[in-house]
Amino acid sequence: MPSRRVGAWLIGAKGGVATTMITGLAALARRALDPVGLVTATEPFAGLSLVDFPDIVVGGHDIRAGRLAAEAGKMWTQSRAIRPDLLADAADFFAAVESRLRPGTVVGAGDRIRAIAEQGAAVVVESPRQAIERIRSDIAAFAAAERLDHVVVVNLASTEPPPEWPIPRDVADLEPLLDEVATCPLPASSLYFLAAAEAGASYVNFTPSAGGTPACLQDVAVARGIAQAGCDGKTGETLLKSVLAPMFAARHLEVMSWVGHNIFGNMDGQVLDDPRNKAAKVRSKDHLLASILGYAPQTHVSIEYIASMGDWKTAWDHVHFRGFLGTPMTLQFTWQGCDSILAAPLVLDLVRLVERAWRGGERGGLDWLACFFKSPLGVTEQSFTEQVTMLHDWVERQPSASS
Amino acid sequence: MPSRRVGAWLIGAKGGVATTMITGLAALARRALDPVGLVTATEPFAGLSLVDFPDIVVGGHDIRAGRLAAEAGKMWTQSRAIRPDLLADAADFFAAVESRLRPGTVVGAGDRIRAIAEQGAAVVVESPRQAIERIRSDIAAFAAAERLDHVVVVNLASTEPPPEWPIPRDVADLEPLLDEVATCPLPASSLYFLAAAEAGASYVNFTPSAGGTPACLQDVAVARGIAQAGCDGKTGETLLKSVLAPMFAARHLEVMSWVGHNIFGNMDGQVLDDPRNKAAKVRSKDHLLASILGYAPQTHVSIEYIASMGDWKTAWDHVHFRGFLGTPMTLQFTWQGCDSILAAPLVLDLVRLVERAWRGGERGGLDWLACFFKSPLGVTEQSFTEQVTMLHDWVERQPSASS
Amino acid sequence: MPSRRVGAWLIGAKGGVATTMITGLAALARRALDPVGLVTATEPFAGLSLVDFPDIVVGGHDIRAGRLAAEAGKMWTQSRAIRPDLLADAADFFAAVESRLRPGTVVGAGDRIRAIAEQGAAVVVESPRQAIERIRSDIAAFAAAERLDHVVVVNLASTEPPPEWPIPRDVADLEPLLDEVATCPLPASSLYFLAAAEAGASYVNFTPSAGGTPACLQDVAVARGIAQAGCDGKTGETLLKSVLAPMFAARHLEVMSWVGHNIFGNMDGQVLDDPRNKAAKVRSKDHLLASILGYAPQTHVSIEYIASMGDWKTAWDHVHFRGFLGTPMTLQFTWQGCDSILAAPLVLDLVRLVERAWRGGERGGLDWLACFFKSPLGVTEQSFTEQVTMLHDWVERQPSASS
Amino acid sequence: MPSRRVGAWLIGAKGGVATTMITGLAALARRALDPVGLVTATEPFAGLSLVDFPDIVVGGHDIRAGRLAAEAGKMWTQSRAIRPDLLADAADFFAAVESRLRPGTVVGAGDRIRAIAEQGAAVVVESPRQAIERIRSDIAAFAAAERLDHVVVVNLASTEPPPEWPIPRDVADLEPLLDEVATCPLPASSLYFLAAAEAGASYVNFTPSAGGTPACLQDVAVARGIAQAGCDGKTGETLLKSVLAPMFAARHLEVMSWVGHNIFGNMDGQVLDDPRNKAAKVRSKDHLLASILGYAPQTHVSIEYIASMGDWKTAWDHVHFRGFLGTPMTLQFTWQGCDSILAAPLVLDLVRLVERAWRGGERGGLDWLACFFKSPLGVTEQSFTEQVTMLHDWVERQPSASS
Repeated sequence: MPSRRVGAWLIGAKGGVATTMITGLAALARRALDPVGLVTATEPFAGLSLVDFPDIVVGGHDIRAGRLAAEAGKMWTQSRAIRPDLLADAADFFAAVESRLRPGTVVGAGDRIRAIAEQGAAVVVESPRQAIERIRSDIAAFAAAERLDHVVVVNLASTEPPPEWPIPRDVADLEPLLDEVATCPLPASSLYFLAAAEAGASYVNFTPSAGGTPACLQDVAVARGIAQAGCDGKTGETLLKSVLAPMFAARHLEVMSWVGHNIFGNMDGQVLDDPRNKAAKVRSKDHLLASILGYAPQTHVSIEYIASMGDWKTAWDHVHFRGFLGTPMTLQFTWQGCDSILAAPLVLDLVRLVERAWRGGERGGLDWLACFFKSPLGVTEQSFTEQVTMLHDWVERQPSASS
Repeated sequence: MPSRRVGAWLIGAKGGVATTMITGLAALARRALDPVGLVTATEPFAGLSLVDFPDIVVGGHDIRAGRLAAEAGKMWTQSRAIRPDLLADAADFFAAVESRLRPGTVVGAGDRIRAIAEQGAAVVVESPRQAIERIRSDIAAFAAAERLDHVVVVNLASTEPPPEWPIPRDVADLEPLLDEVATCPLPASSLYFLAAAEAGASYVNFTPSAGGTPACLQDVAVARGIAQAGCDGKTGETLLKSVLAPMFAARHLEVMSWVGHNIFGNMDGQVLDDPRNKAAKVRSKDHLLASILGYAPQTHVSIEYIASMGDWKTAWDHVHFRGFLGTPMTLQFTWQGCDSILAAPLVLDLVRLVERAWRGGERGGLDWLACFFKSPLGVTEQSFTEQVTMLHDWVERQPSASS
Repeated sequence: MPSRRVGAWLIGAKGGVATTMITGLAALARRALDPVGLVTATEPFAGLSLVDFPDIVVGGHDIRAGRLAAEAGKMWTQSRAIRPDLLADAADFFAAVESRLRPGTVVGAGDRIRAIAEQGAAVVVESPRQAIERIRSDIAAFAAAERLDHVVVVNLASTEPPPEWPIPRDVADLEPLLDEVATCPLPASSLYFLAAAEAGASYVNFTPSAGGTPACLQDVAVARGIAQAGCDGKTGETLLKSVLAPMFAARHLEVMSWVGHNIFGNMDGQVLDDPRNKAAKVRSKDHLLASILGYAPQTHVSIEYIASMGDWKTAWDHVHFRGFLGTPMTLQFTWQGCDSILAAPLVLDLVRLVERAWRGGERGGLDWLACFFKSPLGVTEQSFTEQVTMLHDWVERQPSASS
Repeated sequence: MPSRRVGAWLIGAKGGVATTMITGLAALARRALDPVGLVTATEPFAGLSLVDFPDIVVGGHDIRAGRLAAEAGKMWTQSRAIRPDLLADAADFFAAVESRLRPGTVVGAGDRIRAIAEQGAAVVVESPRQAIERIRSDIAAFAAAERLDHVVVVNLASTEPPPEWPIPRDVADLEPLLDEVATCPLPASSLYFLAAAEAGASYVNFTPSAGGTPACLQDVAVARGIAQAGCDGKTGETLLKSVLAPMFAARHLEVMSWVGHNIFGNMDGQVLDDPRNKAAKVRSKDHLLASILGYAPQTHVSIEYIASMGDWKTAWDHVHFRGFLGTPMTLQFTWQGCDSILAAPLVLDLVRLVERAWRGGERGGLDWLACFFKSPLGVTEQSFTEQVTMLHDWVERQPSASS
């Protein structure tokens, strides 16, 4: 039986997460890399007949002008996070991916993104409806040219501001608003979602942007027969919160305050320097504590752009809690993680799992992928361990790989 | 129906954990304290008809000469960990408990403990058999005088050196060795265990000492119809390890090294300054990582006695791990916890849960109490969350409180 | 020779720093406290004939309604920072000081302070000129009633917003503006300064507020024959910056970024929650790095009000620097200090040193006190060690105590 | 006037510090590197006519068999501390230096070093006297072949155990002991020192080993007309101690305990795994606190070999101190520095400064170089800032460069 070919279509294909994922896939495809960091490379997933690395074809959209290899190179030159020999070895792979990249849209992407796009050559004046059609056509052409069995679109673009106007509950009410930028409440991430749905591609939202989350778009996913997962990859400080907060709850230790201070210096950081973009991110990072603890301690989350950090996100968290006899105590942690290095393998995991679920007949939101996300679609459970159990339960529900 | 009365017989009744537990129980019994830190005060345990705080009677053994109230007072004067008004309010309660304290044994307790005892007035020259009989008699007299339905003995004494000779597999082979200190392989904690078993009292080992762990003594527990739980309360750095290590495993992040450095200044710390005593403790803190991760990273655990810290145990952990593309990253945490404050409510939890299990007919080792211990009896699972699930599953197996 | 009596007149006499200073002075005056934390209690100052603790008389202004002892008590109940027995021992001393307290002014103090005052009973409707006269009269009456040889006024009030309009260079141009709140550019701290000057009292500004810093007021200090010192006591994170930054400079290590995140929960923190008040504070904390390093690294300073922290100010600083061959490295520190405990002995030091300098004939700004301040008056040197050398040089210039 | 040529003869020329220094010198000599980290590249040293980088010629001894370029490459492959392009650019320079390397001696170097040497090809059976003569001859041949005006020998070898027997006070008594390894109390570092002195080369001891410190050898330095400096380069945790401890002293804050925990993974770390070697190092790191503070707080210093860290030395320090009213507070810091990167530029600084001093007529120990060392020769001052002042005072005493 010939193997299946699966497309990974990346929105923000020249960003740190995407280029790290591409660099890694280049090495994995030629069996030159130990798959550390890939959840799907661990034992429980061995029998699932997930798509193999050489059978994943990457394309995507971006609004930046730079060359893909040059953007990937920043992970070495600015961040010392990817060894230069790995980048050199991926040169042919970068060239192949680059030939499949298309200009993104800035419709609904916010002023920060528009400014970045204007520095490039990629600005396209178009209506929301035209943007959807252009993107859909790009994805469909990709699938046809590469003879792909399925495409998974992954949103890796920078965080958008929250939508300014309410999005109609019914997709029929949305339809007439798509002709004018001025009247359309959908951000860019949702336009990409609609285009993916029309192209029959599944959709993963790795950011806190709206994407396919609005209720009317969740309906679209089901109607069009695609699977979707999201939102906002859980890679660092929030991952730790979702691991540590259940401990305080289980031991009946009262969290009085939880302060988190994040610094980093990649493009995401620059975009988050706009307070409107930052608001969406902070909300996604902050809401889980009350959900896990059952009460709301005082919290503070700050995210600051510090250029020298490059892709290294350092988080300092200070947890002030009260134990027996009211005695106050403290847990502090410092997380020094490289954002793109932590996120990139999860993108590969999600492409493999979403495709597998779609192949198995699942449509709409995949709630058992909650452990990958800060704001999981359709799930209130925020404890990481409980979420991992949801994932393992799904694995056990699958027919064995021999089928 | 008159309420049940339960005895909590503490070995090391003048130590920090015991005096903190007693101070708290004094306040809980008169409904003057919010039960923060008590696991059994959370919602899942509400319907279990656990023994209520006013119905717990405390007695115990110690080898120290000081007055109980004065020992408890050190938690304020040396550590600023218990508010002085709480200590003052417990004065009558301290006096009542003190009237029930009996001199402990130094047989098999190691040189450090013997030296401390010799500063007091409590040294008793006796054979192991005489020690067992004396302790048994103390516990039985306590149960009779206070008209107790059941007694739970809790070992809170300082960590012993590991036994120097092998302990026979069969209790019949042990019997003839009990007449001479020189021939008896049992440490003090195991003598206390045997005395408890002969008195029909259940036994909780909150330390890494041998206690009822040797196989022949586990047989004794079943034969005598008592329940037991242990070993070594999980309160700080090890708790965090058992919470964080599963995250690295779930995300397929490779832990290269995990270093833990602990400083504290209470009597436990002084006793651990003896390398033989420390060896037992470090082993108990260090073994779980390989069990959770499935491979053995380089580890280092140090415990140092720093007098100025008093009962505050500060742990600094440095976790060096490798992610996607082999990129090294770091998690550091600093835990500033007060050892006795963290441990004391768990002692109350264990008294309540062990008595409840014994009342329900359970005998021998209670493996579903694993989440309380660093080295849980009869359990290989080391992930804290999985252990908490074992506890909650037990709760759900119980008939409702109305029965 | 009878000893000199010196007045310490505190603006903000019910705040944390003031009440801590008063609690300590009560104990020092009866020789019941080891003077840890007092710079002037170290050996180099032994021969200076500084005013002795029993000869310091405390009075002051505040805008709060609470009782002094109750406000002082918060250092125990909210912060566990002062032992309750020390507070109890100071009861008579508190009563005596309280009899010397007078209502403060809210003219020019900003909306936050006005709101706090309105909760009390202390609001006084008055013009700036009336405020100056009322305050001057309070200070003069204090000096007369207590037969004081000199009074030192110390500004310990919460940080004010920066002045909204420019302050005239010439005091003659200021004069006609004092009749109306609406036309007066002087903040409350400067009104207190003018009142002190007219009363012949020296002035210490322990805050970043304007106080006697404006050039026309520096002229007033000289003209009226008073000494002054300021601004903004250097007690925690900034102290460490002024100690550590010279090391990076001396070793030619390039600081790329220096991030400082501060959390605390006292009234200062609440006042700083107003962005205008915070701006003045952050500026005072942030400017010294460029001065010491000779270039401006990227910096970020945040200050957040976290109620559970009480008077404990925890600062996390992340210093990202580059060494030989461009290799990036990191220094992080966590400072867990109690703000009032660190500041209060410095207030006593400053009262003693400013009075001694005034007694020795010094008038106007005392630049050799730079080591006590974040923004030292008339000094560009920001290295703490160099500033300490300035202080020791002054000591050596004094005639011996026997004169 | 033709420029002077100066030799830098490195003991341990294939170690991390040496290879990093060589890599950097290769780049500095061709003006391809910003001299960050070099103290002598800052403004105060501009007029001293120090030897210029292209005029420094490197040779040395080592006991290892590996190729120099391969050893240098470990700073990239094991530690990610030197960019691979800098290593590639230095290839010719490495080859030139390698041609000047000679086999070291293992006489008096301790079992650990002997074991490493035996893995190589460099073991030489010789008496102490033969070793001195062989080394002297190597240095003299180097000076002649390269037409050097002066040679500075720098000891960069791993820490030795302390000498086992007392070293005679008088060099005449030492003389007869040099014929037998079994009777000679001198460690290898002192044999190298004697060889340097006989070759007329100055000597810098960058390690805590004995080197030229014994009194009889200090006499030799003067008699032979060489300059010397040492001991033990101050690059990380100890540097911070010497910067921070004076702050606690100046503010009269009482340090109750100071705990330092160091982890690193380079060859120094492996050598320090031998407790006898470690003892010398810990003593050098620990003694300065009492000297600066004027009293001895409880201290603890640990150094552990953690392989994954490579050349990155991470230190966690916990300073527990007491302020006003006896309130305990805490400062913690984490230093993440690369040992060789921090040390290498100081080696270049010392070669330049020692040669300049020797050229200016200075002989024997150079105490004004104290700021570079943990255990400065002939100096009790331990405050870093005071030591920096000593260095700057020396600079000001020099005749201007134009002379």
